[in-house]
Amino acid sequence: MTVRAAVAGASGYAGGELLRLLLAHPEIEIGALTGNSNAGQRLGALQPHLLPLADRVLSETSAEVLAGHDVVFLALPHGQSAAVAEQFGPDVLVVDMGADFRLKDAADWEKFYGSPHAGTWPYGLPELPGCRAALEGSKRIAVPGCYPTAVSLALFPAYGAGLAEPEAVIVAASGTSGAGKAPKPHLLGSEVMGSMSPYGVGGVHRHTPEMIQNLSAAAGERVSVSFTPTLAPMPRGILATCSAKAKPGVTAESVRAAYDKAFADEPFVHLLPEGQWPATASVYGSNAVQVQVTYDEAAGRIIAISAIDNLTKGTAGGAVQSMNLALGLDETTGLTTIGVAP
Amino acid sequence: MTVRAAVAGASGYAGGELLRLLLAHPEIEIGALTGNSNAGQRLGALQPHLLPLADRVLSETSAEVLAGHDVVFLALPHGQSAAVAEQFGPDVLVVDMGADFRLKDAADWEKFYGSPHAGTWPYGLPELPGCRAALEGSKRIAVPGCYPTAVSLALFPAYGAGLAEPEAVIVAASGTSGAGKAPKPHLLGSEVMGSMSPYGVGGVHRHTPEMIQNLSAAAGERVSVSFTPTLAPMPRGILATCSAKAKPGVTAESVRAAYDKAFADEPFVHLLPEGQWPATASVYGSNAVQVQVTYDEAAGRIIAISAIDNLTKGTAGGAVQSMNLALGLDETTGLTTIGVAP
Amino acid sequence: MTVRAAVAGASGYAGGELLRLLLAHPEIEIGALTGNSNAGQRLGALQPHLLPLADRVLSETSAEVLAGHDVVFLALPHGQSAAVAEQFGPDVLVVDMGADFRLKDAADWEKFYGSPHAGTWPYGLPELPGCRAALEGSKRIAVPGCYPTAVSLALFPAYGAGLAEPEAVIVAASGTSGAGKAPKPHLLGSEVMGSMSPYGVGGVHRHTPEMIQNLSAAAGERVSVSFTPTLAPMPRGILATCSAKAKPGVTAESVRAAYDKAFADEPFVHLLPEGQWPATASVYGSNAVQVQVTYDEAAGRIIAISAIDNLTKGTAGGAVQSMNLALGLDETTGLTTIGVAP
Amino acid sequence: MTVRAAVAGASGYAGGELLRLLLAHPEIEIGALTGNSNAGQRLGALQPHLLPLADRVLSETSAEVLAGHDVVFLALPHGQSAAVAEQFGPDVLVVDMGADFRLKDAADWEKFYGSPHAGTWPYGLPELPGCRAALEGSKRIAVPGCYPTAVSLALFPAYGAGLAEPEAVIVAASGTSGAGKAPKPHLLGSEVMGSMSPYGVGGVHRHTPEMIQNLSAAAGERVSVSFTPTLAPMPRGILATCSAKAKPGVTAESVRAAYDKAFADEPFVHLLPEGQWPATASVYGSNAVQVQVTYDEAAGRIIAISAIDNLTKGTAGGAVQSMNLALGLDETTGLTTIGVAP
Repeated sequence: MTVRAAVAGASGYAGGELLRLLLAHPEIEIGALTGNSNAGQRLGALQPHLLPLADRVLSETSAEVLAGHDVVFLALPHGQSAAVAEQFGPDVLVVDMGADFRLKDAADWEKFYGSPHAGTWPYGLPELPGCRAALEGSKRIAVPGCYPTAVSLALFPAYGAGLAEPEAVIVAASGTSGAGKAPKPHLLGSEVMGSMSPYGVGGVHRHTPEMIQNLSAAAGERVSVSFTPTLAPMPRGILATCSAKAKPGVTAESVRAAYDKAFADEPFVHLLPEGQWPATASVYGSNAVQVQVTYDEAAGRIIAISAIDNLTKGTAGGAVQSMNLALGLDETTGLTTIGVAP
Repeated sequence: MTVRAAVAGASGYAGGELLRLLLAHPEIEIGALTGNSNAGQRLGALQPHLLPLADRVLSETSAEVLAGHDVVFLALPHGQSAAVAEQFGPDVLVVDMGADFRLKDAADWEKFYGSPHAGTWPYGLPELPGCRAALEGSKRIAVPGCYPTAVSLALFPAYGAGLAEPEAVIVAASGTSGAGKAPKPHLLGSEVMGSMSPYGVGGVHRHTPEMIQNLSAAAGERVSVSFTPTLAPMPRGILATCSAKAKPGVTAESVRAAYDKAFADEPFVHLLPEGQWPATASVYGSNAVQVQVTYDEAAGRIIAISAIDNLTKGTAGGAVQSMNLALGLDETTGLTTIGVAP
Repeated sequence: MTVRAAVAGASGYAGGELLRLLLAHPEIEIGALTGNSNAGQRLGALQPHLLPLADRVLSETSAEVLAGHDVVFLALPHGQSAAVAEQFGPDVLVVDMGADFRLKDAADWEKFYGSPHAGTWPYGLPELPGCRAALEGSKRIAVPGCYPTAVSLALFPAYGAGLAEPEAVIVAASGTSGAGKAPKPHLLGSEVMGSMSPYGVGGVHRHTPEMIQNLSAAAGERVSVSFTPTLAPMPRGILATCSAKAKPGVTAESVRAAYDKAFADEPFVHLLPEGQWPATASVYGSNAVQVQVTYDEAAGRIIAISAIDNLTKGTAGGAVQSMNLALGLDETTGLTTIGVAP
Repeated sequence: MTVRAAVAGASGYAGGELLRLLLAHPEIEIGALTGNSNAGQRLGALQPHLLPLADRVLSETSAEVLAGHDVVFLALPHGQSAAVAEQFGPDVLVVDMGADFRLKDAADWEKFYGSPHAGTWPYGLPELPGCRAALEGSKRIAVPGCYPTAVSLALFPAYGAGLAEPEAVIVAASGTSGAGKAPKPHLLGSEVMGSMSPYGVGGVHRHTPEMIQNLSAAAGERVSVSFTPTLAPMPRGILATCSAKAKPGVTAESVRAAYDKAFADEPFVHLLPEGQWPATASVYGSNAVQVQVTYDEAAGRIIAISAIDNLTKGTAGGAVQSMNLALGLDETTGLTTIGVAP
């Protein structure tokens, strides 16, 4: 089986990471590559780490260029995917790496993104209850946001097992690639090296409703989320520190059991041995998720911490994993759980 | 007025930062410098950034060497200060930069530090209610821990004004200098660059009871604390993200008013204009604290975030600030609110 | 004596560093602050580390705004200083932090900067033979480039003592602040963290003729320079590795003696003890220069290495040092040799 | 074909990187793993990024444990490989990742390593003239040092084509993993982040005679080398800036032609298009070498710059590449030219 894949938005960080993974994927042949503001440029100048594609030249994103592929990946700014997606027939697998089709609640979409809601596609986080089945054979995939990936995987077992009160508090640190490749003063190396800083504080970050959607589904009740993202001086990685008050009767053992059960058969989620905590360096460039959980009896809270690579499992790796399911391939094809460290 | 100061523990990071500040202090003359495992070495080899002291040689820590000073700073491992402190008469100002005299509750001390409780000294965080007065003219000072400094300053206004429920959730990121200069594999540059990782999760970090002590005093009721420290890829700085459920009737305005009032006359705490958030880079090498607060109405939580330099305001700068009060000097002598950035 | 100083270009990295130093200078009162593209903004938003100036608002750069000061600093893009400088009378001290007045050779200027040569002002590197005297009482100062500062101080003793052949090979690593605050993709934190890369290779970097000018003056003959700058993953600092073939008869002792002599009375240049090598962290935020030199007998070359903070001694600190001389103040006023480390 | 491989020294950085690559190698089955000081520990605790091997336990390095494998990799401290290597018969492929068998000149070995010379094995840098043929079918491989890999590949084309005078000047920046995993104060994250510093200056670094050996072989005459290594604030990567005076008659075209020819058929060496320079981030985790060269006519020097990942092409990737040749596999099996960036 050879699957021909196009990538719209190949010059950014998400597109570059996707190409890195597709190059290593045994069933994929890389077709059209587009990038509007960089159309006409060599990929070797834009993504110098992708040597096998150095001489490929980017096209403009158009229906003609993207036609004739089995899979089309959309790595476009939020709000732009819906218009492009309309052109593809039901036989083409369309994988949206933007936010356009993630949210079920139209009001949430409009409040946080400010444009009309385009709809909802199967959600590309196979580890969540029900998601894997919905992805198998699907022709449309909404790739989750990077923070919701890390947070949902850290907390859904606690909510799924009825162990946690429906008020989650989350503080996550992200590498700078999560902020994209468009140059802005606060993203300069001079500014971010040696500095930690928060942003989007107080419930205004766009990933908040997506976390609420996932955790509420697991809990079977509305879960409120206090989410504070911070920018960390590293290129990649998310460390999500998530906690919630434990429901009455919860013990360290019941918490451990819920996480053991949730991840027992997951190929990419690794619940660490007790006492060992995740580090983003350990999942650098890999599709693995490292999770650890504990119960702080004095504070009465369950603390679950996850580490992912925001560009791999958090974006492009998650997209490939879901694509594998949609195409009927083994879910792990072309993906690794081995990080590049130190 | 010339004050003669000795430093026990001059070869570590806390001792080095203290010397950096004392060199710039107009009333201080630097006397004996000790450092047990490095006794006999030139300071120029151990602290190559302190050029004016490059030719000073470290002595062993002993009663004789430390005698005859007006002020003695103890930058020793936790649990070692009490024994050294006994030798000084009531006329010598002793500033303990370790934990030995911070906690009032002997049971807390024994649980977290595993040795008999040595007592309690005036607590060197002048911004907390009652602390400044207790420091004026005192001959003993317990310098706060770096995390409790950042966390207490971020949250005490909310508790002092009766705005927050007594269950705080704190996630803080610290630069690696907070872990000290003793070489350990997980602190190697190769390990920490590009990585975020938590440690001491679940209520076991030794700074937890100190935070509880400070916040409970402000609240007038027992405050529980869920505290997760994380190691960030930077040499210095703490960013503390602190939150608590708001009490009924709280509004964004009442929160803002409480913080405005708490910090109105503080020389080192800077409540940022609304919409601007702290960054550790902005307080690099300075004694300033940047604070911002918001009320997340959807989650019902007050979020307060502070940034300090863990070695300056978090350790050595805080020590000098309290020393100034104890000596009857202007509190800001020899200290700056200007960071070294970018 | 109170000296009123204006800063044109206060929103960039050079301007910010200059303000950091002027705030700590006992004889300076900070007057007008300008910044064209940022005129009208609070300095607190642009330079959040300069808390005492947070509420100052930037003006547009104009003759009116800059009039009425004793000293005017020009931290403007290369080529813009000459036009602004014309407005000032001979009684105003004008300190140009750009390149406009550094080069003596008009052909060099035109080749490397592409505009007509504006002239030559006294060169603000007091440690070079003849420079200190020319700066005393001067009303015009050309602040050296950051690389030429590091390189000239590392090599002029060897050339001044006739020890080195007139062909220098220099490889220098600079922190990213040297590239300025204008956002460009290759300066994003995501790009520079974890990466070393060269630029301006092969004799095309604009600082090359400035190095040749300085070293040739010291040698009394034309010195050729092979200069390769590299971008290092750190905000500040220059490490300059400089070498030249030794002339016949040179020994390790004669090299050491030349450097001892050259720096014996210099307040800011510190020749390290034999065996200890410079590190940029040791001069972080300080005006110090750390130098070490050795003679590699097998290769027949003298290797001299210097470390400076590119923003302090390499730009704003060098400017203040020269200003002190021009104003008749002690050369070290308001400056420190103590770095902020670790 | 399934090849059973043992790794002696699996707990260090070289061993960890080797395992990362062997896990992805289609013909390799990973056998015994040893690590003396860490014997008995789970690999998951020592190399948490290697999830598929997390439950493997390290053995002590002994003849029994290492027996019965087709390939044995020795990732041991310099000077320890020779004794271990003696136990293997001529049918076992022994790959030494240490220095023991790299140098041909016994006097060089004794001068730089201080122990008796053990001999010389085929040198694992296939791109050098003659090396590939010697590796095919060999049962012994001496893996090159990381700096000599970067430097030899940057300069041998110039020497091989007779373009350069026999005096090379090299300044290289290395990530901290090159200094190993043994904790030392100067390798702490607090020390290395934000700092560039040289070490081993003046011809004393052990990789110097290895460079001289390689470049002299290419030149057909003795080449002297001035080599200055520097430690850069990044975990991985080497950027080698290499230059030599051009011989009379050299032109930019003749230099370009020599490099084009040298690397035309090399699968891992990528001569960048003119005007684009290497960056270590582009080869992060890959076996690729990025090279660029220019001729500085004013200085009369050829400047060649290479970027490698010190742990991949510089150590473990180079080992696997040579192993492939020795085993008769395609040279690129299990290796990639795609970096993990940003």
